[in-house]
Amino acid sequence: MKKIEAIIRKSKFSEVKTALHEVGVNFFSYWDVTALGNERIGKVYRGISFSTADIQRRYLSIVVNDDFEKVTIDTIIKTAGTGEVGDGKIFVYDVKETYRIRTGEKGGETLR
Amino acid sequence: MKKIEAIIRKSKFSEVKTALHEVGVNFFSYWDVTALGNERIGKVYRGISFSTADIQRRYLSIVVNDDFEKVTIDTIIKTAGTGEVGDGKIFVYDVKETYRIRTGEKGGETLR
Amino acid sequence: MKKIEAIIRKSKFSEVKTALHEVGVNFFSYWDVTALGNERIGKVYRGISFSTADIQRRYLSIVVNDDFEKVTIDTIIKTAGTGEVGDGKIFVYDVKETYRIRTGEKGGETLR
Ligand SMILES: Nc1ncnc2c1ncn2[C@@H]1O[C@H](COP(=O)(O)OP(=O)(O)OP(=O)(O)O)[C@@H](O)[C@H]1O
Ligand SMILES: Nc1ncnc2c1ncn2[C@@H]1O[C@H](COP(=O)(O)OP(=O)(O)OP(=O)(O)O)[C@@H](O)[C@H]1O
Ligand SMILES: Nc1ncnc2c1ncn2[C@@H]1O[C@H](COP(=O)(O)OP(=O)(O)OP(=O)(O)O)[C@@H](O)[C@H]1O
Ligand SMILES: [Mg+2]
Ligand SMILES: [Mg+2]
Ligand SMILES: [Mg+2]
Repeated sequence: MKKIEAIIRKSKFSEVKTALHEVGVNFFSYWDVTALGNERIGKVYRGISFSTADIQRRYLSIVVNDDFEKVTIDTIIKTAGTGEVGDGKIFVYDVKETYRIRTGEKGGETLR
Repeated sequence: MKKIEAIIRKSKFSEVKTALHEVGVNFFSYWDVTALGNERIGKVYRGISFSTADIQRRYLSIVVNDDFEKVTIDTIIKTAGTGEVGDGKIFVYDVKETYRIRTGEKGGETLR
Repeated sequence: MKKIEAIIRKSKFSEVKTALHEVGVNFFSYWDVTALGNERIGKVYRGISFSTADIQRRYLSIVVNDDFEKVTIDTIIKTAGTGEVGDGKIFVYDVKETYRIRTGEKGGETLR
């Protein structure tokens, strides 16, 4: 099992959510964060200077079975981007165990 | 050391907190999140249709020594549930290292 | 790659941020949390009784390459502390993979 954390533009959230739903990922948690990117103030990219400090960000936490890792990541990359600096990041972690509180059951079955 | 993330109903928080305290887990962090469950709109469970989209959720992040993993999970399962769909999830991760900022000390001792 | 989570006093944030920037860590995400410490009410420390329940906390999530782990932790310990109980905690986790959404590239290069 894997945890996929995605830090995306808030403005892209509804597009990402719909796309995830279409590939069968319809359970996750999210909250809003402030994000500092690796831009220096006044960074110039392809002749245009950007500041990403004011971009509103949303933090998505998605736990999936291993066979869903690739499609989840591909879907986020495909839908969260604008092509401009500051589109965000994805981080992947191992998950040791999962439980469904209602039933107490554990393991990959709880993610279906 | 393990990190236990629990996504619970906000309405169950104070019960969970008290129960955790009673078993000796009295340090953790929490914040409020929005949570999308794996329900389709109009899902019917035992003849009743449920929507969990509006349930307010709280995200608990609890780092414990390995010998506290089981009691922490058991306590959350016992106290966070209502028996109805949408009671929440628990995810467990390995923690590589921990530090207490005040003293700079590291390791399992910082969790006691 | 490592994820460094730091729970610090909100009042120390700007000092920590500046210090991280100076050692070359200028990308991370943060949000505000409520934090329960391991203090019993009325705990007495060096003759003074403290309650840390009302301290406002900020949660920093910083993903770095392994060669930045030590300097990031040292910098937080050096700048986030006041010497009084309740200065906060640092937790370290393994990160399996990272992606830059704009380009789709993955791996340690995305953290530079
Ligand atoms: N290593 C990191 N750890 C935690 N959060 C990060 C990290 N890197 C980026 N973020 C968060 O993600 C947000 C978006 O990052 P951003 O898209 O600017 O990445 P980038 O690598 O600078 O790519 P780009 O060149 O497209 O700008 C940042 O503002 C920051 O909050
Ligand atoms: N895999 C997941 N990754 C991240 N968050 C999740 C995941 N699964 C559930 N959650 C969060 O936990 C909340 C509660 O999940 P929920 O209790 O509905 O789980 P469930 O498996 O559908 O169990 P039930 O059948 O009892 O409803 C969801 O609304 C969602 O925000
Ligand atoms: N094991 C933990 N899991 C999650 N959050 C924690 C944990 N330990 C501490 N925290 C969070 O960090 C905050 C600060 O912790 P605190 O500085 O009081 O640590 P401490 O070990 O009690 O050190 P001190 O003796 O200096 O008070 C806590 O209020 C809590 O929210
Ligand atoms: Mg950037
Ligand atoms: Mg559900
Ligand atoms: Mg304390």
